[in-house]
Amino acid sequence: MSAPPDRQHAHKTNTLLADGRELIYFDEPANHADRTQIVDRRVLPTSHPSSTLRLDRILDEWVAIAGHRQTRTYLPPDSECPLCPSSAAYASEIPATDYDVVVFENRFPSFSLGSWVAEEIDRPGANGNGLFATAPGFGRCEVVCFTSDHDAAFSSLSPARVRTVIDAWVDRTEELSRNPKIEQVFCFENRGEEIGVTLSHPHGQIYGYPYVTPRTKQMLASARAHADATGRNLFADVVTAEIKSGERLVVQSSSWTAFVPFSARWPLEVHLYPNRQVPDLPSLTDEERADLSRVYLEVLRRMEAVYDDSLPYIAAWHQAPVRADRDLAYLHLEVFSIRRAPGKLKYLAGSESAMGAFVNDVLPEEAAKLLRSVTPDMADLTADAAEYGAAEYGHLR
Amino acid sequence: MSAPPDRQHAHKTNTLLADGRELIYFDEPANHADRTQIVDRRVLPTSHPSSTLRLDRILDEWVAIAGHRQTRTYLPPDSECPLCPSSAAYASEIPATDYDVVVFENRFPSFSLGSWVAEEIDRPGANGNGLFATAPGFGRCEVVCFTSDHDAAFSSLSPARVRTVIDAWVDRTEELSRNPKIEQVFCFENRGEEIGVTLSHPHGQIYGYPYVTPRTKQMLASARAHADATGRNLFADVVTAEIKSGERLVVQSSSWTAFVPFSARWPLEVHLYPNRQVPDLPSLTDEERADLSRVYLEVLRRMEAVYDDSLPYIAAWHQAPVRADRDLAYLHLEVFSIRRAPGKLKYLAGSESAMGAFVNDVLPEEAAKLLRSVTPDMADLTADAAEYGAAEYGHLR
Repeated sequence: MSAPPDRQHAHKTNTLLADGRELIYFDEPANHADRTQIVDRRVLPTSHPSSTLRLDRILDEWVAIAGHRQTRTYLPPDSECPLCPSSAAYASEIPATDYDVVVFENRFPSFSLGSWVAEEIDRPGANGNGLFATAPGFGRCEVVCFTSDHDAAFSSLSPARVRTVIDAWVDRTEELSRNPKIEQVFCFENRGEEIGVTLSHPHGQIYGYPYVTPRTKQMLASARAHADATGRNLFADVVTAEIKSGERLVVQSSSWTAFVPFSARWPLEVHLYPNRQVPDLPSLTDEERADLSRVYLEVLRRMEAVYDDSLPYIAAWHQAPVRADRDLAYLHLEVFSIRRAPGKLKYLAGSESAMGAFVNDVLPEEAAKLLRSVTPDMADLTADAAEYGAAEYGHLR
Repeated sequence: MSAPPDRQHAHKTNTLLADGRELIYFDEPANHADRTQIVDRRVLPTSHPSSTLRLDRILDEWVAIAGHRQTRTYLPPDSECPLCPSSAAYASEIPATDYDVVVFENRFPSFSLGSWVAEEIDRPGANGNGLFATAPGFGRCEVVCFTSDHDAAFSSLSPARVRTVIDAWVDRTEELSRNPKIEQVFCFENRGEEIGVTLSHPHGQIYGYPYVTPRTKQMLASARAHADATGRNLFADVVTAEIKSGERLVVQSSSWTAFVPFSARWPLEVHLYPNRQVPDLPSLTDEERADLSRVYLEVLRRMEAVYDDSLPYIAAWHQAPVRADRDLAYLHLEVFSIRRAPGKLKYLAGSESAMGAFVNDVLPEEAAKLLRSVTPDMADLTADAAEYGAAEYGHLR
């Protein structure tokens, strides 16, 4: 049995930008273009990004210091968008005149695999008796352009396009995981000026960290304690309990479950888990990926339908570390917004920023009810499900 | 030897507002007024705030859910400022027509000592097999008005007024620590609309938490590991190392040391420690408090002098928990700003908010150099030091 055409994976073409950074095209089968002859004709200075990790001994966390990022592009006019395709008149970061999905190395990265000048730890006495430990800011920061349409949003993509984005995430997770300097791969989208997005073109980012991040370490410590006490997976138990309770469910499909978490920190927050415990995006089957493209769109559209203005949000994929605790981890997406009412934002002020003590003004059960009650357009999701795969698109009714 | 007049402590008067909330005047000796006859003539509904703690089992942290706060006062016009003194025409939260420093219970608290409806944990099956644990949101949220002058800022207060604010913090820390339901007292100031301050009148807040906050637990875990390994106090070792290095020092006085931390998370961040290890504000001597009033003002004025627009900041006092690990803790203030350049803010986007992985675009040594190089007006600090106490105000030159 041969798969229908749009279930084929995206076609990948690796290229280099003028300053040596990598740019990768992910082309949908219907759109398959030859990208090998496209050249970045800009004259760019060779990029020498260098960031340093410093260990905060009091919180026992690494902090990246990346001084070169201060000059990064900041809210450029639409005509100078570096994420739009290039034209005869304007050369952007993407040399092609059109594209489906593109991934490239960030010109102003927080981490890079380039050279590192180790002057800091060589300065006599600078290590403060072990209290001032540093390490190279090795890693990788990539930009993922979801569409060449400057005015689109992730939520307005087609399920087929989301499938291509998932292919790009899977490819990058596999590729970056092969690098011995990278310990965790993080795919995410920051959306909205209110949370500091400096480019409005629809795009996400991928960070390859040289360490397991503080939040992931914290989650895995809880998961380890739970496994030791019960023999079970903590995340799986939470998903089971949320399904059983039902009060906070938002979307359920054959392979995914989305809910407002019991102890939500944000006024609008949804967690999305595959129904089967897997460590990361590459571990998902084709069917789970196709289903994800629809469920993810439904989650975002429901969140965006709650308020009457555009929704700033962060969408964060929690994947297992590359080498550690992969059995304890459970792939999931956390999407949350700082919007707490039309025109009002939830800020992280003293209690949250300084003490890590969150106060949420919205009851999670009420947020879930609101998310279930809205009726965004989902005709394309139903059609996609009917055409390719599921007999019926099984969202919550 | 009798102390000079302004080294006497503030005079305290306890009163009640119309809805039963406590309001406390802290009057400076020169200004001593009889507050006992002042009555709040407003008709206010009795306040029944109730918040619930929910345990996030995956991060192992309590989150407070406080639905009643959504209706709180939001950027009122100056003529309706609830923190200004009352007048014949307008009744604010403070019934007096003038005041020095006032502390009162927040009308929209995240935590309160009032009644708690335990319906949630009694609902059958609602505790999700132990995964949905709740507790009463007991605690206390207080507002501290630093001055009756609506247009002032903390940095424009006199050293004598800061001394009165310190008296109020000390009093509230002692008072709230006596409550068996309160485990940690947090004095802080959020400054600036950019970080979500909803009232522009100069004020701070005090939270009495019913648990030890996540950040404090994390700090104390590091301090415990360090003490076990070395027999020494981690915070004291960090202060000693910063003084020895000198690269990041901002202000030094006879009893206080301020520096940009080695692994600063924020573009502008200063930590201020007493030179002697104490667990909390009440443990400071009169002399240390007087010196603090000058050094704190110098730190804030230096931070505010760096950029040409008003500086949004969070100033957070880290005190020892009321009952646990008081020997490991070390009182200190952390002040940080989200301003990363004139007109530009540092946002907590995906990496920080979702993964706890901070990236700072400003080299801490450069921030410290900048903070040392600015020349804010400090004539009043020098005069205060000369008049009361130190022979010379010993800031860094």
